[in-house]
Amino acid sequence: MAKDKGEKGVALKVPKGTRDWQGTDVVLREKVFATITEVFKKHGGVTIDTPVFELKEILTGKYGEDSKLIYDLADQGGEICSLRYDLTVPFARWLAMNPQTQSIKRYHIAKVWRRDNPAILKGRMREFMQCDFDIAGVYDPLLPDAEILKIITEVFANLGFNGKYTVKLNHRKVLDGMFQVCGVPEDKIRAISSAVDKLDKSPWEEVRKEMIEEKGLEPTVADKIGEFVKNEDELKIGAPCAERSKKVLATLQSNADLMANPVAKAGIDELTTLLSYLDIWGCLDFIALDMSLARGLDYYTGVIYEVISEGSAPTKTNGKNVSRAKKVVDADEDRSSDPSVGIGSIAAGGRYDGLVGMFSKKGQIPCVGISFGVDRIFSIIKRRIEDAKTSTDIVRATETDVYIMALGGKGCLTERMQIAKQLWDAGLRAEFSWKVKPKLPQQFKAAENGGVPFAVILGEDELARGEVKIKEMGLPEGHAEKEGILVKREDLVEELKKRLKNTDTTLAGTLAALQV
Amino acid sequence: MAKDKGEKGVALKVPKGTRDWQGTDVVLREKVFATITEVFKKHGGVTIDTPVFELKEILTGKYGEDSKLIYDLADQGGEICSLRYDLTVPFARWLAMNPQTQSIKRYHIAKVWRRDNPAILKGRMREFMQCDFDIAGVYDPLLPDAEILKIITEVFANLGFNGKYTVKLNHRKVLDGMFQVCGVPEDKIRAISSAVDKLDKSPWEEVRKEMIEEKGLEPTVADKIGEFVKNEDELKIGAPCAERSKKVLATLQSNADLMANPVAKAGIDELTTLLSYLDIWGCLDFIALDMSLARGLDYYTGVIYEVISEGSAPTKTNGKNVSRAKKVVDADEDRSSDPSVGIGSIAAGGRYDGLVGMFSKKGQIPCVGISFGVDRIFSIIKRRIEDAKTSTDIVRATETDVYIMALGGKGCLTERMQIAKQLWDAGLRAEFSWKVKPKLPQQFKAAENGGVPFAVILGEDELARGEVKIKEMGLPEGHAEKEGILVKREDLVEELKKRLKNTDTTLAGTLAALQV
Repeated sequence: MAKDKGEKGVALKVPKGTRDWQGTDVVLREKVFATITEVFKKHGGVTIDTPVFELKEILTGKYGEDSKLIYDLADQGGEICSLRYDLTVPFARWLAMNPQTQSIKRYHIAKVWRRDNPAILKGRMREFMQCDFDIAGVYDPLLPDAEILKIITEVFANLGFNGKYTVKLNHRKVLDGMFQVCGVPEDKIRAISSAVDKLDKSPWEEVRKEMIEEKGLEPTVADKIGEFVKNEDELKIGAPCAERSKKVLATLQSNADLMANPVAKAGIDELTTLLSYLDIWGCLDFIALDMSLARGLDYYTGVIYEVISEGSAPTKTNGKNVSRAKKVVDADEDRSSDPSVGIGSIAAGGRYDGLVGMFSKKGQIPCVGISFGVDRIFSIIKRRIEDAKTSTDIVRATETDVYIMALGGKGCLTERMQIAKQLWDAGLRAEFSWKVKPKLPQQFKAAENGGVPFAVILGEDELARGEVKIKEMGLPEGHAEKEGILVKREDLVEELKKRLKNTDTTLAGTLAALQV
Repeated sequence: MAKDKGEKGVALKVPKGTRDWQGTDVVLREKVFATITEVFKKHGGVTIDTPVFELKEILTGKYGEDSKLIYDLADQGGEICSLRYDLTVPFARWLAMNPQTQSIKRYHIAKVWRRDNPAILKGRMREFMQCDFDIAGVYDPLLPDAEILKIITEVFANLGFNGKYTVKLNHRKVLDGMFQVCGVPEDKIRAISSAVDKLDKSPWEEVRKEMIEEKGLEPTVADKIGEFVKNEDELKIGAPCAERSKKVLATLQSNADLMANPVAKAGIDELTTLLSYLDIWGCLDFIALDMSLARGLDYYTGVIYEVISEGSAPTKTNGKNVSRAKKVVDADEDRSSDPSVGIGSIAAGGRYDGLVGMFSKKGQIPCVGISFGVDRIFSIIKRRIEDAKTSTDIVRATETDVYIMALGGKGCLTERMQIAKQLWDAGLRAEFSWKVKPKLPQQFKAAENGGVPFAVILGEDELARGEVKIKEMGLPEGHAEKEGILVKREDLVEELKKRLKNTDTTLAGTLAALQV
């Protein structure tokens, strides 16, 4: 058939901006997902799986300029479809389609696609995973918002990030009211807001210049904004920030102009309630109220937040750097179209009360949510493990417990297969060589390559006596059981289970083993 | 922005042939995946995640006529890509790209897409999940093949299918040799092979007619084929078939014409070895050697197998039938383009030694694998649970352990939040109402809707004494603890953990609870 294709030389590569996930990378990534999923379930989360493509018109008009980055499917007859750009719009479409569901806590861990200029060195891919938790429904104010922030702190605690991340928090109403108080014309508010959002990367002077020269703002208005958004107190990532946030809030509350603006006052009151809830949950030290946070997306209507971490330093994946230090920012990065994983940002979200109403005449469903940039989080954790690791690999590619080996020239294939069945039936994870007469060194090598902790060795003499040998791999010279111990075949499962340490293969267990 | 879109009425639907997965469906499906994954890991499997789209030329020339069913991405500049059609070709591409990997046992559970005519009533979707396990590498003959078949029997045992499924087994070399012996011209072998493959749905007379009238075979040749492929002994799905298979093998071995054909003899010898291995593993009763199994795909070169089940009867999903009884086959179904899930077929696979070589000049890597039709398997299990279920729901949408409630008018919000933190910190899954002053009946309703097993009820008087009430939901009238029991706040976690039965939420546990 296409046998000759090989000779013709098909391009052997994955599409630009995509990658294969394999080996310990995929094992570690699944541990990250499992850790995050467990937190979601602790808070009553349920998952919804939507198709990877949607009708094109569902996505139309939701992403502003970034709509050009949407992947379309070819028109092969029938409906016109596009690959999803994020998990939020499909969720809003689902809510509008399922009006019987008036409230839900849903999580979704899945791929999204963006025809962005890929920058693999910077971890910007065209295919990447998002990990979203959203709460939809009408509740008393700020309670779901507070729980989302609590979830964020639990996720990062369980991922071993305590002391290494900070949640920046702001409120769209405070920003909008502040812009009104400063005298920003209504039609310039979104443009000025996105200029403010650059303060994490650019000094105030540059942002001020952009506001005046590019966005046409009066210098006096820009200077008024500056008074609000310039932080005297530099934000130190990972440092406890409860006091800092309370100070920022007190400053807002004591500003008579702001408090006289009904929009700003509503936002400040909401932040006050929110911080009081977060105080009950003891997570204020992770959450920094920050007037310079604005977030790019148009659809936010209330609280907004973004998680920043110091850990985004270079790490190797398949021989290539996929992440980089926050400081090596270049101009290109500013055009990052990924709302959830900007520079140094590893999660982001906010309240969006209007999105579902864009699909349904019947009514709005208010929503609040968070999107974790799991690929970037993965890179940070991977680097930490690489930095900390000793001679043994902490993350194994397989989870095999036992390798069954033959000693001697006859190969004992039938007996190896019988023992494999005995172990599988008992729920143990076991492998053996698919050679009729395998060589002992090759069998040991296979077990070592897989990091398999135990070998069961079959010798003809021992088998004749109904015995097999259990050998723990990697024991030091001189250890009492270095040469292995003989057990009866019928006792094998029990003896192995006794020895198979209850190894904690969760991410928490891995991080604990690293003592990081 | 697009606010007015709602008024204009965007079509609120998912693309044709796709669906959202939600509620208990997605929970049950994930349990099925977890069950299958655990078997894969028991046999040393590792996963590889490939991009959902590949360069179009990677897929070209691999699927014959079905290539027209491939979804292409629009040409928006740059590479021309297509959504993957199965998980096998991307795996072969990966092997060719990673020549350092000379052997691997890989599993992959992921979506594939086919622009087929969707038939939701028949469970034929354009987006569906596949669940593949493949072994690549050079080993002694039939050992990996035997392990794949062992894995199939373990998967179906763990999914509760014992007595309800049969693996049909054949060998391409036996078929090809048999066709040669019967006198089928070399250029007609594939066409005749696919006619034979219809014997599970059509009587021999129809298949014979097709061979003669459509494929132009001599009637005498067709009759010779008939002698081989007509089973005297009708295959009863789920019935022990070890003796039947041994009889079929003995018939082949005693056929002098076949044994004189080197191709057929090689296949028969391989089947003999394979059955001897399966005998050691005690799984021969699930595997029926069947000369009428031919399989559609061209790339198979050795053993082929297909799992059939009686369970594919109608079941409801979102109010629609998505599966149907094997007997309501219509002409349309014969054109099914899904090689892994034909009618009544719930898994299929075989040995394909030539596919990797289509991508790489450097060399072949022989492979053998299995693809589980998990959407169909899901439908069968779902129906079984629906048929068996009593008044209580066996599959819950959430996994919440505890619902924290306020008794009385003040709402005890702070205390509810404090208790929630206490439980979350202890790893328990807890929810509470996001109302400042929720009504008790509404709180009970929320807990009942979620199937939450325990309530913690906060009353002002009890709180003043440092106590809270634990109430197990759904206890019958007259039960000693029907009204709940009071515990000290500091003992709450311990008391809850004691009461939270170690409910087995795995699929095996669910099926055991159903006693099915």
